[in-house]
Amino acid sequence: MTRTLARILIVGYGVVGKRVADAVDEQPDMKVEGIVGVNPSSLIAVASRTKRYPLFAKDQESLERLTASGITVTGLRDDGLEECDVVVDATRAGVAEGNISTYSSFRKPFVLNGGERAGLADISFNAQANYKEALGADSARVVSCNTTALCRILVTLQSLSSIDDVFAVAVRRAADSLRIDKGPINGIVPAAGGFSHHGRDVKSILPKIHIQTMAVKTSSTLSHVHVLRARLNSTVNTRRVIEELEKTPRILVIDTKSGLVSNAHVLEWARDKGRPRGDLWEVAVWEDSVHCSGKDLVMIYCVHNEAIVIPENIDAIRALLEMESSPGASIETTDRALDCFQDQADYSKY
Amino acid sequence: MTRTLARILIVGYGVVGKRVADAVDEQPDMKVEGIVGVNPSSLIAVASRTKRYPLFAKDQESLERLTASGITVTGLRDDGLEECDVVVDATRAGVAEGNISTYSSFRKPFVLNGGERAGLADISFNAQANYKEALGADSARVVSCNTTALCRILVTLQSLSSIDDVFAVAVRRAADSLRIDKGPINGIVPAAGGFSHHGRDVKSILPKIHIQTMAVKTSSTLSHVHVLRARLNSTVNTRRVIEELEKTPRILVIDTKSGLVSNAHVLEWARDKGRPRGDLWEVAVWEDSVHCSGKDLVMIYCVHNEAIVIPENIDAIRALLEMESSPGASIETTDRALDCFQDQADYSKY
Repeated sequence: MTRTLARILIVGYGVVGKRVADAVDEQPDMKVEGIVGVNPSSLIAVASRTKRYPLFAKDQESLERLTASGITVTGLRDDGLEECDVVVDATRAGVAEGNISTYSSFRKPFVLNGGERAGLADISFNAQANYKEALGADSARVVSCNTTALCRILVTLQSLSSIDDVFAVAVRRAADSLRIDKGPINGIVPAAGGFSHHGRDVKSILPKIHIQTMAVKTSSTLSHVHVLRARLNSTVNTRRVIEELEKTPRILVIDTKSGLVSNAHVLEWARDKGRPRGDLWEVAVWEDSVHCSGKDLVMIYCVHNEAIVIPENIDAIRALLEMESSPGASIETTDRALDCFQDQADYSKY
Repeated sequence: MTRTLARILIVGYGVVGKRVADAVDEQPDMKVEGIVGVNPSSLIAVASRTKRYPLFAKDQESLERLTASGITVTGLRDDGLEECDVVVDATRAGVAEGNISTYSSFRKPFVLNGGERAGLADISFNAQANYKEALGADSARVVSCNTTALCRILVTLQSLSSIDDVFAVAVRRAADSLRIDKGPINGIVPAAGGFSHHGRDVKSILPKIHIQTMAVKTSSTLSHVHVLRARLNSTVNTRRVIEELEKTPRILVIDTKSGLVSNAHVLEWARDKGRPRGDLWEVAVWEDSVHCSGKDLVMIYCVHNEAIVIPENIDAIRALLEMESSPGASIETTDRALDCFQDQADYSKY
């Protein structure tokens, strides 16, 4: 089954939703059927007036509020559901669960995002790890930013050797940048409770990997940073690992010697590069943190929590609608459209 | 050989030096013979006028500058060296190397601090790990704050099982609090170069442990936080580990449920407790981060970089001068004098 333009309805227009809409809008084989709005806001006004995305009101009350504020409303959410081919739910964690029966009643496949429980969708999804398993499924859950990064790294390492053991520490950003009421501002907050959920979440995609993760929250608002150690089943060579990372899509190999000495510098690079909103869709691995010692491999990388799952949402759409059977082809289409395809080559030049 | 009051000269009066002076001043078997000053400053004025520590000028020029500012000077550094029994060098990293020949020419044993190379002293020192090896030595290097914390934890774990493997991530404070010119303020900075030096430094004290460490720098100015995984040689039980930590000197077992949810909260506890400068000499392990899974054990703990090495400096003095042959007795004397002895019991009560 192929479609010329798959019609995507985006429910939830926040950190992820607004980015998914823009990414869909860039794809050659998709269009934004619409976004679903609840209340008038500057963000909704930009979506409607600047970006000209059709706006569907969540319900009659929303429609009245939106219309009263002078924002053009195309219809109600259910009208959007009727017209679309697939729904991307990017609502706040926990909200999607209540929406699923509606999507099902309209017989629309749907993509959930990482905050939701694994069991709510047919499959937990990472493009490089298990694209084919999602082909034609009714639903897919794109795993969280941290889990997405871990999957990309581990799938890449698996092409060099099987992996006996992984321990990773997520040094987390304080909060999404608009949550100015949250901290920490000068503290480091341990995630109590032993292992963090990220390891378990990786296993929802890569069940055979022995992985344990821990997390601390820091006052950076810019991104997460992971410190990872993998114990491989065979001896590996640092140079070989770096080469493999460099040729993997959605992994950008950077180094501190070029000036990218912190996550702030990495994200400024993305801004300078002209990325929309300064987004870094790739996992950015510091080359000079990669070190192999026997079978042990360590690395540190930057995970732009706002952006990293966006290309996976696009690929998940293609898989659910069976628009493309090859993960590599979908990834390439997505990344070309986002204009991040082969940015590794551009980076290396300077 | 026993002395009633060992006479200590402190060279370098900054973050560590001023704390060592105060800790010496509290000990029943030591006195501050003096501190060595270079330039007049509010800190030196407090040391001289409030604390009444004898002040030795580094050289004739220093003496003139200090005297001109109205600060009373007892003599020159060499006068202090003549009179003291032992020198604690707490100068900035790299400076001590140039001082060692002077200490040796006066035939005075000396204690160095963590910033210096391991080879500069007879022994790298941690009270719980190798006190006895330092008995009567000419010099000892108290290892850095991070290494001291790692040694305390690992020695404690070794009492439960031999350790096959350790991987620890130091989530570091940005800079000492007075370095207001340094960052990061909103970034996370990877320590490039593969493994960090802390693991190697632990091996200078515990050579048989297989340990790898990595580090990232964050914008907290309050303390370091470590995330550690140890793979033991035998299965351990979470409750048993916590009990062992609780009964170990200089380890404080805290938990987030009591409100100590970040390093900021932990250090505020030390301030509320009435600790001088709000110092936390102990490693503070979050009980609810401790988790065992088979032979794997993870934990997160807070390392107050300004304070944690202070009791070790005191014990190193006792070892070099052979004032006490038992590490346990020295540790108890030090901790009683600092008034942190049995604070675990006090903490647990609330």
